Amino acid sequence: MSDNNATPKTAADAPKPLWAGRFSAAPTGELERFGASLPFDKRMWRQDIRGSKAHAAMLAHQGVISQQDADAIRAGLDDIAGQIERGEFTFDVDRDEDIHMAIERVLTENIGPAGGRLHTGRSRNDQTAVDTHLIARDLADEILASLAKLEAVLLDRAQGEFGVVMPGYTHMQPAQPVLLSHHLLAYFWMFNRDFRRVSAAREAANVCPLGAAALAGTTYPLDRHMTAEALGFSGPTANSMDSVSDRDYLLDLIYACSVCQVHLSRLCEELVWWSSAEFGFVEMDDAHSTGSSIMPQKKNPDFAELVRGKSGRVVGDLTSLLVTVKGTPLTYDKDLQEDKEPLFDAADTVLGSLMACTGMLATCTFKEERMREASHEGYMAATDLADYLVGKGLPFRQAHAVVGRIVGDCVREGVTLQQLSTDELRSYSELFDDDAHEALDIDSIVRRRTTFGGTGHEAVRAQLKLATEALEADEAALGE
Amino acid sequence: MSDNNATPKTAADAPKPLWAGRFSAAPTGELERFGASLPFDKRMWRQDIRGSKAHAAMLAHQGVISQQDADAIRAGLDDIAGQIERGEFTFDVDRDEDIHMAIERVLTENIGPAGGRLHTGRSRNDQTAVDTHLIARDLADEILASLAKLEAVLLDRAQGEFGVVMPGYTHMQPAQPVLLSHHLLAYFWMFNRDFRRVSAAREAANVCPLGAAALAGTTYPLDRHMTAEALGFSGPTANSMDSVSDRDYLLDLIYACSVCQVHLSRLCEELVWWSSAEFGFVEMDDAHSTGSSIMPQKKNPDFAELVRGKSGRVVGDLTSLLVTVKGTPLTYDKDLQEDKEPLFDAADTVLGSLMACTGMLATCTFKEERMREASHEGYMAATDLADYLVGKGLPFRQAHAVVGRIVGDCVREGVTLQQLSTDELRSYSELFDDDAHEALDIDSIVRRRTTFGGTGHEAVRAQLKLATEALEADEAALGE
Amino acid sequence: MSDNNATPKTAADAPKPLWAGRFSAAPTGELERFGASLPFDKRMWRQDIRGSKAHAAMLAHQGVISQQDADAIRAGLDDIAGQIERGEFTFDVDRDEDIHMAIERVLTENIGPAGGRLHTGRSRNDQTAVDTHLIARDLADEILASLAKLEAVLLDRAQGEFGVVMPGYTHMQPAQPVLLSHHLLAYFWMFNRDFRRVSAAREAANVCPLGAAALAGTTYPLDRHMTAEALGFSGPTANSMDSVSDRDYLLDLIYACSVCQVHLSRLCEELVWWSSAEFGFVEMDDAHSTGSSIMPQKKNPDFAELVRGKSGRVVGDLTSLLVTVKGTPLTYDKDLQEDKEPLFDAADTVLGSLMACTGMLATCTFKEERMREASHEGYMAATDLADYLVGKGLPFRQAHAVVGRIVGDCVREGVTLQQLSTDELRSYSELFDDDAHEALDIDSIVRRRTTFGGTGHEAVRAQLKLATEALEADEAALGE
Amino acid sequence: MSDNNATPKTAADAPKPLWAGRFSAAPTGELERFGASLPFDKRMWRQDIRGSKAHAAMLAHQGVISQQDADAIRAGLDDIAGQIERGEFTFDVDRDEDIHMAIERVLTENIGPAGGRLHTGRSRNDQTAVDTHLIARDLADEILASLAKLEAVLLDRAQGEFGVVMPGYTHMQPAQPVLLSHHLLAYFWMFNRDFRRVSAAREAANVCPLGAAALAGTTYPLDRHMTAEALGFSGPTANSMDSVSDRDYLLDLIYACSVCQVHLSRLCEELVWWSSAEFGFVEMDDAHSTGSSIMPQKKNPDFAELVRGKSGRVVGDLTSLLVTVKGTPLTYDKDLQEDKEPLFDAADTVLGSLMACTGMLATCTFKEERMREASHEGYMAATDLADYLVGKGLPFRQAHAVVGRIVGDCVREGVTLQQLSTDELRSYSELFDDDAHEALDIDSIVRRRTTFGGTGHEAVRAQLKLATEALEADEAALGE
Repeated sequence: MSDNNATPKTAADAPKPLWAGRFSAAPTGELERFGASLPFDKRMWRQDIRGSKAHAAMLAHQGVISQQDADAIRAGLDDIAGQIERGEFTFDVDRDEDIHMAIERVLTENIGPAGGRLHTGRSRNDQTAVDTHLIARDLADEILASLAKLEAVLLDRAQGEFGVVMPGYTHMQPAQPVLLSHHLLAYFWMFNRDFRRVSAAREAANVCPLGAAALAGTTYPLDRHMTAEALGFSGPTANSMDSVSDRDYLLDLIYACSVCQVHLSRLCEELVWWSSAEFGFVEMDDAHSTGSSIMPQKKNPDFAELVRGKSGRVVGDLTSLLVTVKGTPLTYDKDLQEDKEPLFDAADTVLGSLMACTGMLATCTFKEERMREASHEGYMAATDLADYLVGKGLPFRQAHAVVGRIVGDCVREGVTLQQLSTDELRSYSELFDDDAHEALDIDSIVRRRTTFGGTGHEAVRAQLKLATEALEADEAALGE
Repeated sequence: MSDNNATPKTAADAPKPLWAGRFSAAPTGELERFGASLPFDKRMWRQDIRGSKAHAAMLAHQGVISQQDADAIRAGLDDIAGQIERGEFTFDVDRDEDIHMAIERVLTENIGPAGGRLHTGRSRNDQTAVDTHLIARDLADEILASLAKLEAVLLDRAQGEFGVVMPGYTHMQPAQPVLLSHHLLAYFWMFNRDFRRVSAAREAANVCPLGAAALAGTTYPLDRHMTAEALGFSGPTANSMDSVSDRDYLLDLIYACSVCQVHLSRLCEELVWWSSAEFGFVEMDDAHSTGSSIMPQKKNPDFAELVRGKSGRVVGDLTSLLVTVKGTPLTYDKDLQEDKEPLFDAADTVLGSLMACTGMLATCTFKEERMREASHEGYMAATDLADYLVGKGLPFRQAHAVVGRIVGDCVREGVTLQQLSTDELRSYSELFDDDAHEALDIDSIVRRRTTFGGTGHEAVRAQLKLATEALEADEAALGE
Repeated sequence: MSDNNATPKTAADAPKPLWAGRFSAAPTGELERFGASLPFDKRMWRQDIRGSKAHAAMLAHQGVISQQDADAIRAGLDDIAGQIERGEFTFDVDRDEDIHMAIERVLTENIGPAGGRLHTGRSRNDQTAVDTHLIARDLADEILASLAKLEAVLLDRAQGEFGVVMPGYTHMQPAQPVLLSHHLLAYFWMFNRDFRRVSAAREAANVCPLGAAALAGTTYPLDRHMTAEALGFSGPTANSMDSVSDRDYLLDLIYACSVCQVHLSRLCEELVWWSSAEFGFVEMDDAHSTGSSIMPQKKNPDFAELVRGKSGRVVGDLTSLLVTVKGTPLTYDKDLQEDKEPLFDAADTVLGSLMACTGMLATCTFKEERMREASHEGYMAATDLADYLVGKGLPFRQAHAVVGRIVGDCVREGVTLQQLSTDELRSYSELFDDDAHEALDIDSIVRRRTTFGGTGHEAVRAQLKLATEALEADEAALGE
Repeated sequence: MSDNNATPKTAADAPKPLWAGRFSAAPTGELERFGASLPFDKRMWRQDIRGSKAHAAMLAHQGVISQQDADAIRAGLDDIAGQIERGEFTFDVDRDEDIHMAIERVLTENIGPAGGRLHTGRSRNDQTAVDTHLIARDLADEILASLAKLEAVLLDRAQGEFGVVMPGYTHMQPAQPVLLSHHLLAYFWMFNRDFRRVSAAREAANVCPLGAAALAGTTYPLDRHMTAEALGFSGPTANSMDSVSDRDYLLDLIYACSVCQVHLSRLCEELVWWSSAEFGFVEMDDAHSTGSSIMPQKKNPDFAELVRGKSGRVVGDLTSLLVTVKGTPLTYDKDLQEDKEPLFDAADTVLGSLMACTGMLATCTFKEERMREASHEGYMAATDLADYLVGKGLPFRQAHAVVGRIVGDCVREGVTLQQLSTDELRSYSELFDDDAHEALDIDSIVRRRTTFGGTGHEAVRAQLKLATEALEADEAALGE
């Protein structure tokens, strides 16, 4: 796009670039295609038409154009919308360099001079800007709705699997047993933060640059508050030069997508490994797996891997736009045309990934028995066994040493702590008694962690209540 | 850092790693240094001591340790703080792998067994987490204060230079004349958005992970709300596993730094070019320039270049942490130790850059005459001249063609539009009259752009009022 | 793609995924589309057919399939190639998930069971790998050819503009006068290094993974050297597991594109600023500029801005693939499907940008007079004036001080050094004589810098010779 | 650094910046520290002294300075080198902004006016450039040596573990059994490619910019070939402007580090998961693990996690420098001072990580029994069992269906394929006979994959030979 402003033009000159007057040679086809944004910005046709209708209505209200012209414009734009919707509109990059020119050209062809008056007091600079604000807001809304669905599935599974015990890991080594619900809720809170982050990006997008014109505002008596309101924005932007050069709201949204996709990559890393023969903690639903034509035993967690891999492209999109904006002077430079593709790519990727992960989580089977078995294997009761001795009066350090010896012997013998008899325990310390087995009981160990936010059953029940409230708040925000 | 939890230990065993029991060989020195975080996390000593004091007070209040022990711990930690403050504390990576171990070891040496009890119900995992939350919040506060200063200087210069006219550019080509104040305010709003972004990151940091222990919470009756409140947090985190694995709040802050630094790079790009002999729009204060020992004519805008160049490292810091977190499973993995250096680097860079830019802007001289001269050179009145003819009844397209011819001739003759006499204008169209010169008056052109957010004098005056209110709101937020 | 191996299959079961046996539910359409690579990998159809033909010929040579089958396969593949070439082949993501399946399905429909035998001793893992190696090599060849063209234009302009003097800048401040040819040659050497870098990436791609099968090699008596040779590779890869997991050669090529695009961004930064009214060093050809419908004076260097802006996406592509590969275990994981889009995007971007820049440089007009004028304005003779006094016996430091005072006075008076009379010079030091004006002569100043690689006329002439040889070497390499 | 050139200066004026003449105010301390490079570039003292000695010798040889001065300079620089080596040299950022100024100031203090003559025909621009070329070359040499060590360990383990069978994975699902040696060799080839990549970066660094002066060359009769040769470079750079602005060779080296670190992250991902209780494929040596003070069962593969996490910072370093260079015009801009920290950080990180991984691999224990056991669990013989039936004349598709049913039943019954009797097999197809058990033998399955680069014993033996030759070539290159 190039800046242009208030251009009454007729169908007759349409195929010729509007700014061709001063120039002796038109760009060649290859160059034109290199510079064109139509292949990707045609996606904004709904936003472009919506913005133009608001602009025309305001121009008429302010007496800049006649009501008759405004009516013709509105009807003409609705016709074009219908055509595009029905797939009857031909986008041709050799004819129009961007979506704005494509629609305006056809409008002028269809309704005559009134079409040319639509651009009064407007430049492609602020026109593009308002379209991009609108589509960023729309994409944010879609992502928020998808996030709420994923939150709901996580909460649902956390409630449904309540009581299932699994190993909790640090450094991928078994550390202490936890509730599967607690583990799933850890992800709930990540996506809950993503919801907040995307909401903030939506708010950043929700201001209206229309009326900034090329860069300096115009001499026409526009009512920028009227168009802002008509398009559902919180208000007009405060500075016309900033309006056509600001890309912060896009960075905010792509950043929010990046963090969300990185969260998804963490979840998928776990799903991939939990699906391995060695872990066996989860079985993916068939719809979310693929097989091999030659190896009938294969059930590959393809979608989890793909989502994990796609974190690359979203981080790449963020890098891309930061680099593009770096060091560009005010106001509009053609560099900034490079903003839409990373936006679309990041939003589409995160939407697809949220869809895939929501489906995976909704349909996978957690292998309770295998998780419970693994909870016994890793000597994760060691901490609580030492605490038992401390409770009996042994200084912690000595207790730790005793338990260290017990664990060492068990490893060598290939037995679990729970398999030791009271007598065997007493051979290490006379303080052990029959009640030691309660200290070694994996469920009790979990249950005893009662502090706020801990993995104990009561604490997790309280957390489920908090998460339910948080989800309700998110869902309520969607409806607004 | 490695996870460890509730470790009463005595001075006697301090030099030996606390987890050495099961191991037959200690890491070699080179490896230890590779794995150590002390060289960079010692910067968190204030936060570490602050967190430990809150934890000890809570343990005593809950009856987990005696009040006597808590008093000894508090006094011991204050002593250490004094030592560090006075530079009397030796950090030795061959002895302590991190700041937590360094302080705990000395505390235990100084106050005996009570020192060991400090770690009750706590793990290095949640201890590190709370320290990092605290320092992120502190850094956010510093950045907010620096941003408010830069906003104030921009507003001050915008007010002081009110009325100065300069070329407004798109594509770095003269487009339409604007007020210098308007141009400066475009930056004001960028940094105003940065203020909001950093504030959001501060809010994300402002929750308390203490009490999450290694990953699962603990069996000790901790009061997490009490420590959260004592440390000024809005409350405790909701999930212990998330608490020790979450790095979102750091990403949020580094992201906010990235956008801010990119904004600074845009400003500095302009300052560098405006300082060129060819533009001559600004002269840097001597303190913000450097020269050359051999070329006495040189006055290099070094600091502007450096700030522009430093956008690389902040974007690099953001990439760095996103890559590190990508694909890491729950909960704490040693990978996550790599979070602090990008945080510190990004924050330090943006703080230094804000300082430098605030100074540059406060002290530079804008060359009003040169700007006004350039405003006449670029044929930026062309749009308004065409509008003049439209006002006289000529259809816009014909008006545009007439003005196109005038501009073409002026370029060839090397004269400005303002240098044309009425007669010369009339040779192009009889509609021109003496009042055409008003349409060509650069100041009038600016003044006529009266829409909200435009560059007209009245519009900019209104904008200055809005900016003043926005700054007051930011400054008020600082005081909270 | 998923790994599969040696799958004879008939047209009858084509619409059903080949690995469906063990599964009770097929992925839904939305999921399938999320996982499909056909939309982007269909671009590799030429490579896929080429690879399959080589594989079939080898299978027949080794007696694994009959010569009759091999002939049928070759003819069938040629038919499909013709169809695709003529746009008669329908790619349908709801039917085929990737290009390999699309071609194989139609082949089997057309030639019967022989089509199924094509996949003997091959897996989609090594099939995809060989296609990607082939397309990476093809893209590298295209980029090399484009680079050679840009080098040729730079060399041509450097020769054509020989003798034109312009300011040389450091810190964007005039430093010392240089030849425009010298400045242009600085870019020549950058792109010459890019040629080397892309060549190295091409060499990295030039090994043949075919025969690695799924990951372990196969039990069929394949001759991997034969297929490698048939496809023009330097040889087969050494390790089957590495063969299906290696993405280094793609990183190498995307990296080479990144550096090249950053070089182009540096060049375009200069072209944008040189095109400004204030510099006026260059005028873009009309074909490489765009205008504004409302501001007839505008001539925007759009393509230079766009190329500069596009550096973001190429750096983003590099980040993207590095992130994707990070932390993925051996061998093939679905994450790695994310390799093609960044490759195609980086290669296409750099190819378009090279085309645009070659055109811009070939057609732009350098404003010799304006450059010469600017060479006098910046007091760039100061160094040589001091050297003159040193030559007359004055210690350098005193000479420097004298010239410093002269420059200071000239700045205040608004005159150039060259405008000073001998008498005026003598008022600063009696050592000045009429020959001082030679020291101040901009052409002489340039001419005197005779060291190897310097800007003196003779030195640049020698450099032009070196550059000519370097270009000839590059062009010769293209022919190989 | 700022550009300066040929500056005779005396001790008297040392504390005052050399370019202070034209300036009325010096930068404040805070600003000076912000702009100083001494804190990181002091690391280049060896290179700076080496470069200065070569320059002085050449100046004397060319008759620009006296031999006596050259001798004094050499001796003075050797003295300073000794001081720094012994830790007796104080670096003070408040006094010197960079390493060049620090050394030159002390040299002039120590040896008088001769010290000032060292800078004749040299600028800080080319001085910095040559130092950076030298240190890049030195760092590349260190990395090459470390890479060769890692290659040697991998080859050694591959030889030592020859015959050990483990599951080969795709999608982290057991696919086909492979030799552990084959798996290890896959990494060998990755690091072998890294060796090539670092070598190419070394070659890029191995040209000499000394003599480019500020940007244009000088009027002094320097012999640039002489200094290039004295410093071991392949020759002088061809263009003085390119010489002071080129950062390609640093990008090349940081890129090579990025890919290497990503390779290490893949290896470490596997080591982390193989160390898990669930896989149990490897046990880390105690020196390369850490424990937990509270959980005596923990043995954390800390170093593997840390190396994996550190891939973030190296990718960040690469991004950082690409962003910094993007869009900077010729020649030297202060932005480019930001090149050294990412270089040092990337090189140090990869050196430390190579050291850690070499140690881990050299000392870890592969659990042969557990690997063999896992090789039987995953039904990885299914492909070969189907091939058996094909060998007996059954069409592949029918064979595949039969084996699919067998595997399905085995999964339900919880038995391995190998546990089936001949009779049980015959109940699925009468084609099975006693020799079917050979088809199911895991070792035979591996052994039969004999194609070049495959996992069969003979193929791997051939590969070991190739790897040995490749390593010998690398080691020979080190000695050059």
